[in-house]
Amino acid sequence: MRQNRGMASGENTGIIRVGVIGGGQLARMMVPPAIHLGLRISVLAESEGMSAERAADAVGDYRDPETVYAFAETVDVVTFDHEHVPGEILRELEARGKVVHPRPDALQFAQDKILMREKLTELGVPVPDWAAVSNEAELQRFIDANGGRAVVKTARGGYDGKGVRVVSQADEARDWFTALAEDGRGGFLLAEQLVDFVRELSQLVARRPSGEVRTWPVVETIQRDGVCAEVLAPAPVQHPETLDEAARIGLAVAEGVGVTGVLAVEMFETAEGRVLVNELAMRPHNSGHFSIEGSVTSQFEQHLRAVTDLPLGDTAMTAPAAVMVNVLGGPEEGPMPVRYAEALAAHPRAKVHSYDKLPRPGRKVGHITVTGDDLDAVLAEARAAADAFA
Amino acid sequence: MRQNRGMASGENTGIIRVGVIGGGQLARMMVPPAIHLGLRISVLAESEGMSAERAADAVGDYRDPETVYAFAETVDVVTFDHEHVPGEILRELEARGKVVHPRPDALQFAQDKILMREKLTELGVPVPDWAAVSNEAELQRFIDANGGRAVVKTARGGYDGKGVRVVSQADEARDWFTALAEDGRGGFLLAEQLVDFVRELSQLVARRPSGEVRTWPVVETIQRDGVCAEVLAPAPVQHPETLDEAARIGLAVAEGVGVTGVLAVEMFETAEGRVLVNELAMRPHNSGHFSIEGSVTSQFEQHLRAVTDLPLGDTAMTAPAAVMVNVLGGPEEGPMPVRYAEALAAHPRAKVHSYDKLPRPGRKVGHITVTGDDLDAVLAEARAAADAFA
Repeated sequence: MRQNRGMASGENTGIIRVGVIGGGQLARMMVPPAIHLGLRISVLAESEGMSAERAADAVGDYRDPETVYAFAETVDVVTFDHEHVPGEILRELEARGKVVHPRPDALQFAQDKILMREKLTELGVPVPDWAAVSNEAELQRFIDANGGRAVVKTARGGYDGKGVRVVSQADEARDWFTALAEDGRGGFLLAEQLVDFVRELSQLVARRPSGEVRTWPVVETIQRDGVCAEVLAPAPVQHPETLDEAARIGLAVAEGVGVTGVLAVEMFETAEGRVLVNELAMRPHNSGHFSIEGSVTSQFEQHLRAVTDLPLGDTAMTAPAAVMVNVLGGPEEGPMPVRYAEALAAHPRAKVHSYDKLPRPGRKVGHITVTGDDLDAVLAEARAAADAFA
Repeated sequence: MRQNRGMASGENTGIIRVGVIGGGQLARMMVPPAIHLGLRISVLAESEGMSAERAADAVGDYRDPETVYAFAETVDVVTFDHEHVPGEILRELEARGKVVHPRPDALQFAQDKILMREKLTELGVPVPDWAAVSNEAELQRFIDANGGRAVVKTARGGYDGKGVRVVSQADEARDWFTALAEDGRGGFLLAEQLVDFVRELSQLVARRPSGEVRTWPVVETIQRDGVCAEVLAPAPVQHPETLDEAARIGLAVAEGVGVTGVLAVEMFETAEGRVLVNELAMRPHNSGHFSIEGSVTSQFEQHLRAVTDLPLGDTAMTAPAAVMVNVLGGPEEGPMPVRYAEALAAHPRAKVHSYDKLPRPGRKVGHITVTGDDLDAVLAEARAAADAFA
């Protein structure tokens, strides 16, 4: 592990040092509120040149226990940019007296989709029909019982549509079953009912170790190719009781799994206004990026407050409408600022957030947020701006 | 000069590297928008442990030419947290082909109050009556001609009420005259009419090298003991034409001195609604801190856009009212977060900005901003919050 700065030294009494494992854009966007709150933030990034290099005090492999233990020694609380740190490393950290948020006992439900489904079912939270399947025959039975199609997911490691397939024949998941067999863990895949939904919602919740909880307004998320493309905050009202139900579910999950920090509960809304939980994320989430400008307290500031057990801030909207649109990398070379000046000139109200990443087709390299009084106008402006920056 | 990070390496095509000379809270507050804009920011801080340590790539003395030249080599554009870098160093930087904003030819008017008064007089901008005085006899004549009192200022180096005295006898400035004689520059002090003002206003302006200019709404500033204590944005209307005049003066000064970056024009408003320019600052300014939450584009983001010659952002207010209250250090030990949790709990809508400085009595250690619909309510909440954090 390379450690090259004194930021996390805590030489001033009372200063809280937060260590973030993972060097992506979520860690990057925690840095501004850490500066304003007066927290000392440091990041354990997977490699040099990552998005959060701005704050990258250390570079090292989060799967290596000694690297993580050494990083944790330099901070007061450990939190995450992603959910991939092995639970056994985090449990050992706790055993050594380090403070980790979210705690591994909660984080496991975001790390393993089968554990998540079991827990949500136990909590009585509505979810799509599901089964843990360990071979093609079991998967085929699930497909046949669900009208000839199913969603298959790897239990671990998926994100942005990776590790998710819609199948009609069990052999379409053969490579995954083979990989499961080879890794010797005798694991399962998750088979799920293909939900006929009309839109997707996300409920963000923040919860402190002491139990204080705050929610943001439920948002509508629009996915393309498995990637969050747009977020409308607050979600336009179609069935008012659905939004209440989404908020109720968000709180029930936060309490039920004992999350600390920010939790995103992604949900499907059906034509009848039912909501079913799709995914959980225990960290700031793409569906909450609007909150940097759109809420009194952003998800990044709130996550820092929550994991340091500081009182949570107000989550009211700062404007009637906020829209976030992701900027995706295209096929051409060069980083985001290729048409940067032109785009800034055309969209003076757009708030641009660059992740300082080299673009690849479909890779999230930044996002745009626009706030205002009228959702349609704000959406049109945010889309036009994101096009200009892409 | 110690240089310990690779942040300003510019290895990605098109990335703009901004170097800030000075490690105070203004440099610190440039870091968040630099992260969001995707700029690489580095800071030449005077010493370790300064407010902008977060971004302190280098530590060194800004009065040492070689230190500044070496720092400038690592960035694409040089800008400032303060106005104290000697003009001859900056002119040499320009001669070496480095981009410096504001340019030394503009910055001199913020560095030397006598040059500033001469320039403003030449531009036809209203200022208090003034004279450059080189000895006690000249100062006494000015005092006698102005009703028996005058404001005396050192031409260089003053801030926050330092280098400013109200005198009725010339010998009250004897030490300053002695110091001027000893530094061998045969310099002058600035004597000014003591203006009978009803309040103070500040006009913030941003201007790009290409000439694009944007103003924020005129704000009212409330000083205590020579230090900006509170800012009300926008300034409550007393004489509408006065606010228009203040905006007109701000633009005239920005154009007249050819500023690049953010300019703050501090003004006195008299009982009759006249405005007279008091001071200029060519950098983000305490009177513009409200803009972090209160404007679509903050003064810190705008300064970065301006000095990199990127198009300027919208400066509209995000809410009808925004109030900033400084948090001043008290006599007791310990940094800002002594009563931090308690204060956060009591004021969930207050946006706190810690400068991560050890407190001294009267030292600015942070500020609070509250935005909302009603100025009186926002002011009351911001004051209560600042009290709680102090």
